[in-house]
Amino acid sequence: MDPPELCLGTGHAEESHRQDSFNMLTFILLLTLTILTIWLFKHRRVRFLHETGLAMIYGLLVGVILRYGIPANSYHNKTTLASLTSAWQLQTLCLFQVTFDPEVFFNILLPPIIFHAGYSLKKRHFFRNLGSIITYAFLGTAVSCFVIGNLMYGVVKLMQAVGQLTGKFYYTDCLFFGAIISATDPVTVLAIFNELHADGDLYALLFGESVMNDAVAIVLSSSIVAYQPAGANTHQFDASAFFKSVGVFIGIFSGSFVMGAATGVVTFTKLHCFPLLETALFFLMSWSTFLLAEACGFTGVVAVLFCGITQAHYTYNNLSEESTKRTKQLFEVLHFLAENFIFSYMGLALFTFQNHIFSPVFIIGAFIAIFIGRALNIYPLSFLLNLGRRHKIKGNFQHMMMFAGLRGAMAFALAIRDTATYARQMMFTTTLLIVFFTVWVFGGGTTPMLSWLHIRVDVDPDQDLQPSADRQSKTKQESAWLFRLWYTFDHNYLKPILTHSGPPLTSTLPSYCGPLASCLTTPRAYENHEQLRDPDSDLIRGDADLTFTFGDTAITANGAANGKRSGSTSEEALERELDSREQELLSRGTRLVFPIEDHI
Amino acid sequence: MDPPELCLGTGHAEESHRQDSFNMLTFILLLTLTILTIWLFKHRRVRFLHETGLAMIYGLLVGVILRYGIPANSYHNKTTLASLTSAWQLQTLCLFQVTFDPEVFFNILLPPIIFHAGYSLKKRHFFRNLGSIITYAFLGTAVSCFVIGNLMYGVVKLMQAVGQLTGKFYYTDCLFFGAIISATDPVTVLAIFNELHADGDLYALLFGESVMNDAVAIVLSSSIVAYQPAGANTHQFDASAFFKSVGVFIGIFSGSFVMGAATGVVTFTKLHCFPLLETALFFLMSWSTFLLAEACGFTGVVAVLFCGITQAHYTYNNLSEESTKRTKQLFEVLHFLAENFIFSYMGLALFTFQNHIFSPVFIIGAFIAIFIGRALNIYPLSFLLNLGRRHKIKGNFQHMMMFAGLRGAMAFALAIRDTATYARQMMFTTTLLIVFFTVWVFGGGTTPMLSWLHIRVDVDPDQDLQPSADRQSKTKQESAWLFRLWYTFDHNYLKPILTHSGPPLTSTLPSYCGPLASCLTTPRAYENHEQLRDPDSDLIRGDADLTFTFGDTAITANGAANGKRSGSTSEEALERELDSREQELLSRGTRLVFPIEDHI
Repeated sequence: MDPPELCLGTGHAEESHRQDSFNMLTFILLLTLTILTIWLFKHRRVRFLHETGLAMIYGLLVGVILRYGIPANSYHNKTTLASLTSAWQLQTLCLFQVTFDPEVFFNILLPPIIFHAGYSLKKRHFFRNLGSIITYAFLGTAVSCFVIGNLMYGVVKLMQAVGQLTGKFYYTDCLFFGAIISATDPVTVLAIFNELHADGDLYALLFGESVMNDAVAIVLSSSIVAYQPAGANTHQFDASAFFKSVGVFIGIFSGSFVMGAATGVVTFTKLHCFPLLETALFFLMSWSTFLLAEACGFTGVVAVLFCGITQAHYTYNNLSEESTKRTKQLFEVLHFLAENFIFSYMGLALFTFQNHIFSPVFIIGAFIAIFIGRALNIYPLSFLLNLGRRHKIKGNFQHMMMFAGLRGAMAFALAIRDTATYARQMMFTTTLLIVFFTVWVFGGGTTPMLSWLHIRVDVDPDQDLQPSADRQSKTKQESAWLFRLWYTFDHNYLKPILTHSGPPLTSTLPSYCGPLASCLTTPRAYENHEQLRDPDSDLIRGDADLTFTFGDTAITANGAANGKRSGSTSEEALERELDSREQELLSRGTRLVFPIEDHI
Repeated sequence: MDPPELCLGTGHAEESHRQDSFNMLTFILLLTLTILTIWLFKHRRVRFLHETGLAMIYGLLVGVILRYGIPANSYHNKTTLASLTSAWQLQTLCLFQVTFDPEVFFNILLPPIIFHAGYSLKKRHFFRNLGSIITYAFLGTAVSCFVIGNLMYGVVKLMQAVGQLTGKFYYTDCLFFGAIISATDPVTVLAIFNELHADGDLYALLFGESVMNDAVAIVLSSSIVAYQPAGANTHQFDASAFFKSVGVFIGIFSGSFVMGAATGVVTFTKLHCFPLLETALFFLMSWSTFLLAEACGFTGVVAVLFCGITQAHYTYNNLSEESTKRTKQLFEVLHFLAENFIFSYMGLALFTFQNHIFSPVFIIGAFIAIFIGRALNIYPLSFLLNLGRRHKIKGNFQHMMMFAGLRGAMAFALAIRDTATYARQMMFTTTLLIVFFTVWVFGGGTTPMLSWLHIRVDVDPDQDLQPSADRQSKTKQESAWLFRLWYTFDHNYLKPILTHSGPPLTSTLPSYCGPLASCLTTPRAYENHEQLRDPDSDLIRGDADLTFTFGDTAITANGAANGKRSGSTSEEALERELDSREQELLSRGTRLVFPIEDHI
């Protein structure tokens, strides 16, 4: 089957439709090949190469074939087949760029990846390390961005001095590069962590940081683009423009955050008995978050991230068991396909993108800069965080975080979004190479690195979750007053209103709010509550009983939880509530009976 | 939040991106509303309105609001808000048409619907009635197309005579209308059939016919478009052009069929233990069928249909239990969303499409024509079929089939594909109204009609599946020699090669093919086979044991299955194999032990 021959004599529109189909087909075959190889690797327990690395390799190979498969001079020969094939190759090369509008990455491929990341954050470890994660994600990314930006500005100046720079490259371009390349993507590392059951806290730190810093990088880069100093000297520092950029950052970020969280909260479905409807609704609501944010000028990807986190926190509790499984599987497939598509596209882009600018000095400079940027992010911040943490981030954890700073889908998507200028083209090429190198070398080196750093693997989740005296104090230390305040509010008011779990509002609201409370409480919440009061009940289930105890305590000791006893109970309850997602793993009896007998 | 105000001062591209997001958001909210109402209806067991009918109503309402929400003259007022809103409305009206390229329906929305239809055909009843289904689908659709086309040509002539026709309307246009309006879509009826457990044979006839005639209509309409007589008199009959059209029909249909069936056969995945990979692969292969067919100039939708049927037949047996569930659920969600999207878009299109041509004469004529066309399809063909069928298609079944000739997604998609000329615009408007009318009136009237026609409901699948003397002879009668030949070939050679089920090749191939046979037989097939030989085995599973018996019989009595005993056994086995999909419903013991004890 030879496409060009089939195309002869058909209209332009139809031909382009066929070409589109053919291009998509190429990618689908690439993905199929990737899946088959992944299966082979998993089957034979090969761990040195992750599926994303594989996808890139296959993409590279196809790119090479498209580019160099038939020597360029045969195009000028008169042999029909060769020239046709060659013409088709050229056409394909051009069309690959036309077909996949960079916005496709932002509007179709990134949302499921980011949503899935938010939705599958392991809540307990995540909330326990929330402060550190936010520090790394915001402060760390900002540090990394400015360090890389300034170093690259030095490199650019150097290139200018030795005459290697043939186009314009401003300071804002360097900062922009710093922003896009600061988005880490430890998908390879985390897949291996998951497989080896590596330490949960380290996992949470890395995953949380990478998910959040994607959001930070995306907003940071658009703030830098928004930095437009007034007047003639367009590339000098301008305080008002700078503060405007900061304002844009805060505005977009908080807008997207609020929008995502709000939609996540709103989607409390109660369509039990109809898993298909529930799943469809869940999918539509997540997608509408993205669209709503985009329609309002915020960032859809960031909104989707927080929507995922919020839905995992609230909506998840409302779904029927069948639906939780379905939604998880649906997003898993979407995420899997989107991720492998992006990575194989990256492989393909290295050879089929027409405007690459390979500048060895810039590339070497960038590698050094991202190394220094990552180091100045992890080590100083870990030192500062350790001052406040009782459960320190140990040295080997810091080295592992340093090592796990891979670059992936987000850096690529940000770089390909705009490749119009000389500076952007050079950045795109460099980003591509950085992604290849880090995914293959650092991704492949994860398993040896883990053992070299003596990071414990095969952690038994059971043992890891046993409450201990050490853990309680640690939690007390880490969850700052702001977080505790939010937790209490969430627990006593938000959860009962938005989910069936949690204590009924009638027991958490003051008595004068009685009618309102009973109107907002579902029968199922009472049911859960009643089951709890029955000491013989076998049906005691996760959240409900734990939070009930905490709820009761909270009313009596809410403002003044100073008594040592009640304080520690509330900490325990907090700790345990955070476990709720993982408790299917646990033997239930031991942990659940204790607080009830203690208080009733 | 007022979109036009947010849009002010932004670039054109960004504004259009926001508008796109906003449009998509409108649809998603429509779908969300539909889902919530469906849930309410299901919850309260309301049956008179199907979800697709609901989706259309909501679409209509939004269309009315967009069109008439604010009176047109306020646009000329100087009040800022009203004029802005009105300008936004106009913009939205225009953009709704720009955003949804008709090809979106063909390339994105129809494939999952059609694939799901093929994948969920109930095999047993389907194959039992295959001959009748093919007759209705091919001969019936052709009859319907020509009857409607000729009647409409009469209507058009009449309109011309009374001066109601202001544009050109050729005979080929009438035939084209006949083709697109002949595609039935009994989604409403079948949903109700499913819920009420109506007669399985009637269900198979209706479902099979509607699925296959979608494929026929799509190819028929493109053949009619391909009918281009040579010379000056472009709208006279031209024998060579006619035969060329027939050739196009046969070429496209068989090409798509072969391509779909081939891909379906090729996707025999054996990636057990990794349901995610299996599901992703399954999804990709189905999609690649569509793209491959489109890239080669065939019809993707038709290819996807046959791919679905083939995959249900072969690949399904190879998937792990987890994967069968996952793939089913994945395609169920996609199909559900796509279908409701199309129907709500239809509702919206009635008021937002700009070039409607409402011609009362044409519309009334079309209603009468589709009634006559359907009648001349069902009654004469049923009469002819009943001459050959032992299990007759009874009168009440015929009336029900007549009544269930709803028009839906396919007719709409074909009509919206090209709305450039006067004739096509009039057809589009008429098609829309026919879809509305049939879905609401005939769809809503299904339950009363079923009881009025005394069609048995609440059929116990168990009882329905009991093998009986009557059934065996019936099967013998219906499955013609060609089908039996294919069945034997499929059973002894294709199934063992392509799936783990079926008898091992070593027992079906002649002894001189021994080495080849053992090389192609998987260990699992032997396993299934071994389990079978063990009379105490509890692990006996569906297909494997049934087909084994048949397989053995087939070797000894293959060419000359004349002996009454072996003939009837092979019929039983055939019958039972066709049951394999439904046997989860059955108590297994009774049916499965019988043939084994009989032969070993």
